[in-house]
Amino acid sequence: MTILQIRDYLQQFFDSVELVGDGEQQVLAPAKIESAKVGEVSFVANEKYVKFLTSTEASLVIVHHSVAVDQFLPGTSFLKVKDPYSAFVFLLQKFVKPRVIAPIGIAASASIGDGVLIGEGVSIGAFAVVGDRCTIGNNCVVGAHTVLLHDVVLGDDSTLFPSVTCYDGTMVGKRVVIHSGSVIGADGFGFAPQSDGSYVKIPQMGIVEIGDDVEIGANTTIDRATMGSTVIGRGVKIDNLVQIAHNCTIGEDTVIASQAGISGSVTVGRQCVIAGQAGLAGHLELADRTQVAAQAGVSKSFMLPGMALRGYPAQPMRDQLKHEAMLRSVGAMKEKLDRLDREMKELKDKESMKGTA
Amino acid sequence: MTILQIRDYLQQFFDSVELVGDGEQQVLAPAKIESAKVGEVSFVANEKYVKFLTSTEASLVIVHHSVAVDQFLPGTSFLKVKDPYSAFVFLLQKFVKPRVIAPIGIAASASIGDGVLIGEGVSIGAFAVVGDRCTIGNNCVVGAHTVLLHDVVLGDDSTLFPSVTCYDGTMVGKRVVIHSGSVIGADGFGFAPQSDGSYVKIPQMGIVEIGDDVEIGANTTIDRATMGSTVIGRGVKIDNLVQIAHNCTIGEDTVIASQAGISGSVTVGRQCVIAGQAGLAGHLELADRTQVAAQAGVSKSFMLPGMALRGYPAQPMRDQLKHEAMLRSVGAMKEKLDRLDREMKELKDKESMKGTA
Amino acid sequence: MTILQIRDYLQQFFDSVELVGDGEQQVLAPAKIESAKVGEVSFVANEKYVKFLTSTEASLVIVHHSVAVDQFLPGTSFLKVKDPYSAFVFLLQKFVKPRVIAPIGIAASASIGDGVLIGEGVSIGAFAVVGDRCTIGNNCVVGAHTVLLHDVVLGDDSTLFPSVTCYDGTMVGKRVVIHSGSVIGADGFGFAPQSDGSYVKIPQMGIVEIGDDVEIGANTTIDRATMGSTVIGRGVKIDNLVQIAHNCTIGEDTVIASQAGISGSVTVGRQCVIAGQAGLAGHLELADRTQVAAQAGVSKSFMLPGMALRGYPAQPMRDQLKHEAMLRSVGAMKEKLDRLDREMKELKDKESMKGTA
Repeated sequence: MTILQIRDYLQQFFDSVELVGDGEQQVLAPAKIESAKVGEVSFVANEKYVKFLTSTEASLVIVHHSVAVDQFLPGTSFLKVKDPYSAFVFLLQKFVKPRVIAPIGIAASASIGDGVLIGEGVSIGAFAVVGDRCTIGNNCVVGAHTVLLHDVVLGDDSTLFPSVTCYDGTMVGKRVVIHSGSVIGADGFGFAPQSDGSYVKIPQMGIVEIGDDVEIGANTTIDRATMGSTVIGRGVKIDNLVQIAHNCTIGEDTVIASQAGISGSVTVGRQCVIAGQAGLAGHLELADRTQVAAQAGVSKSFMLPGMALRGYPAQPMRDQLKHEAMLRSVGAMKEKLDRLDREMKELKDKESMKGTA
Repeated sequence: MTILQIRDYLQQFFDSVELVGDGEQQVLAPAKIESAKVGEVSFVANEKYVKFLTSTEASLVIVHHSVAVDQFLPGTSFLKVKDPYSAFVFLLQKFVKPRVIAPIGIAASASIGDGVLIGEGVSIGAFAVVGDRCTIGNNCVVGAHTVLLHDVVLGDDSTLFPSVTCYDGTMVGKRVVIHSGSVIGADGFGFAPQSDGSYVKIPQMGIVEIGDDVEIGANTTIDRATMGSTVIGRGVKIDNLVQIAHNCTIGEDTVIASQAGISGSVTVGRQCVIAGQAGLAGHLELADRTQVAAQAGVSKSFMLPGMALRGYPAQPMRDQLKHEAMLRSVGAMKEKLDRLDREMKELKDKESMKGTA
Repeated sequence: MTILQIRDYLQQFFDSVELVGDGEQQVLAPAKIESAKVGEVSFVANEKYVKFLTSTEASLVIVHHSVAVDQFLPGTSFLKVKDPYSAFVFLLQKFVKPRVIAPIGIAASASIGDGVLIGEGVSIGAFAVVGDRCTIGNNCVVGAHTVLLHDVVLGDDSTLFPSVTCYDGTMVGKRVVIHSGSVIGADGFGFAPQSDGSYVKIPQMGIVEIGDDVEIGANTTIDRATMGSTVIGRGVKIDNLVQIAHNCTIGEDTVIASQAGISGSVTVGRQCVIAGQAGLAGHLELADRTQVAAQAGVSKSFMLPGMALRGYPAQPMRDQLKHEAMLRSVGAMKEKLDRLDREMKELKDKESMKGTA
């Protein structure tokens, strides 16, 4: 691909893509600015990476319009845009090497149950297990060793990497991606305590419903509902090792980072961001666009859209930061308190001397 | 099932089940009170759900004796009991749809090692691997893709969902359920530091023993002991993504919620509750009926039965809540301190003026 | 093995191994000192276990030179060394029972792709999937159900337990051990936010590189880089359920305990220790030999080697412990403040009485 071709490609998505330098050079691969070589394209979106421009060997760097590129090495060309990061992300898609998760067609070793409907252009990998009455949409990819229990539905164009498990009844939307080791639809953690201290299992009779355009990372678990559905809304992105308990509803375009845990019957709004290792207690609700900081522990509902939360128990970000700063001032308070105590003692001593004078 | 049949069923387990309304209606499915339709049964166990009784279409609702049901819609019948939640849980079991984890019999594609003993009524799914000298009790279900290394024992009536892994020597009791992706008996995390900064692996020679009636969620890990056994007591319930390290002992009927982590050589008593994302440091002991709050970090033993713990490092609940409230009062303390400081200054100024007068 | 043979074996690694008692007894197995029986060997490395020496039935106990062993039972012999724990660890390796992860050779049921290179002495278990163009070094063990996508390289003498998944392009060093359920090389969690609140996936084009002598626990996830490599250095030891995000570099001989999470583009130095459930925010750097306490949340870089960190946000251990102690003194401060307030009021009352006198 030449630099001119890259400019033309980016102009489909972005206004005013300005080329500085030689447009005929060939670009073969993307690279980080720290290590880019001749024939590679990189980007600088952050001031602190501008320094690498003086030494990079990259053939092409995508930068912001404001970068004065004339000062840099003549071997490097530049494309100036308004949002270099997004432009680079779009460009990356041109360089993706084809990844084969499973060859097209149904592997001879796959186990396909009774009454299964399989669309066109489907790939089902070695040793995959598709249970009775499952439906696999067009162009789906089911990786090797992935297990669908009975009555699972995959929408068109969805990809399950190897060794995913979907329990019976799981409904997966279109263009969904689920990475290896994730378990969708296992029983919710519901046990009724008995008077002798033991527990009786509460049957978990619901399912999991996953909307279109969802991506789920590796080794994540999403439990089926006790009744009804655990719902993952359209466009939700879930990282690795996340726990989503039974009966939760996650709003559209919400993002959940690694190792976060969402307890049972929680409702998370749309376009929320739950950072890594955060935890949400059961039966609470978060409004749209709520942001939960890493490791925060949310213990109650926050119904005002767009709040940022932090700490344990989680508080609005500004209050919590103020509280934390206040706590850091306790040492100074203690010193002041001790000084006042001394001064008080002196004053009282004087008073009492006067009294006895 | 008619409402009269449901009443008769519940009377086997509960005293004084009182029917109000038509007992001849058919009930086909359970549902949540918010969404129940004609032909469905639901329950209200909590005051805040009583409001739904004015609008529900449910054919049957299970309520507490104290609920004045006459005011509600004539289409709905009621069963009044002492504990509506438990009654509903028992009733749910009548509605469970049959779930096929693996058909009865040994799948032709399963790999069965030498010297394996298999009981009656066993199901072993596609591509399951049963290592040499394993014993599978009567009526066990071994899901597709589940791997038992050699010398594993499953007690009668146990169910391993697809893609469980049990390392060599794992002993599983009766009526145990293990969900997909869990790994039982992997090596404990034991490495001896060397003077050059590297580590030598400490052989992990023990096993994991799981008692009767244990349930283990998805993607949980329980490590084998260095020597002897990591022991999960009878009736323990473990959620998803939980870590139980080598040489732990978990007492009977203890419950461990998702993403909790228990370090090596910890002893947890009976009927404890470890909430989500809590962590226990190594080599400590918790007495029976200890309750550990979500995200708490327990750093030492608590030997008095029945304590509730919270915070990092975890403290008895009441002390910790008092401490947290105290911290929230620091802002007010600071204001008071500043006022006292001003007043002190004024007093001293007066004094010094007197002195110079 | 006789006690004399054990002494001779240990003398290969340790200076001055002193035998007290009968050297001819047979020792058949290792055991914990609390439960050791005749024919077993144990050790005491910690003062608080010395008490068990008065009652143990062990045939041999390894102790420190300073232990006065003459007072103990005549049935027990002793080996006195400088470091009883390390001596016992080395001795354990003599007792390890052979564990069969997969028999030598390629299982008939394994699926081997095109252009795969397989070394000598390799074991590939039942239903394992080895993708196109993979290279498997000499003496590697690939457990049942383990899946290697295409272009994966395993160095000599590496062991993948059953049900490991390595995505395309993963490079694994020599003598590496990966436990069941771990997923290496899944896509990094990278999505570019769009103006309508949805996200576009950022292609994850890099790989994971794992150095020699690394051990990785069960159900851990290590994501591939966006570009370039996520790097796990030589000798790193990683526990279960750990998350290592895209583009991280973990220095040699660093240890990461269970459920710790490392966000994207983090650089961890050599010989660091990250304790359980700790979290590191993205794009930060930790110097060599940094120690992060359990559940700590590290929010910025610490560039001085050898620091210990604790708390949220993580601070140097000493500062943080001082801070925590200071916070525990807030109750006392409050009392003092209230007393001063009363005294101030009294003083001012006196003053005002004087004024009006």
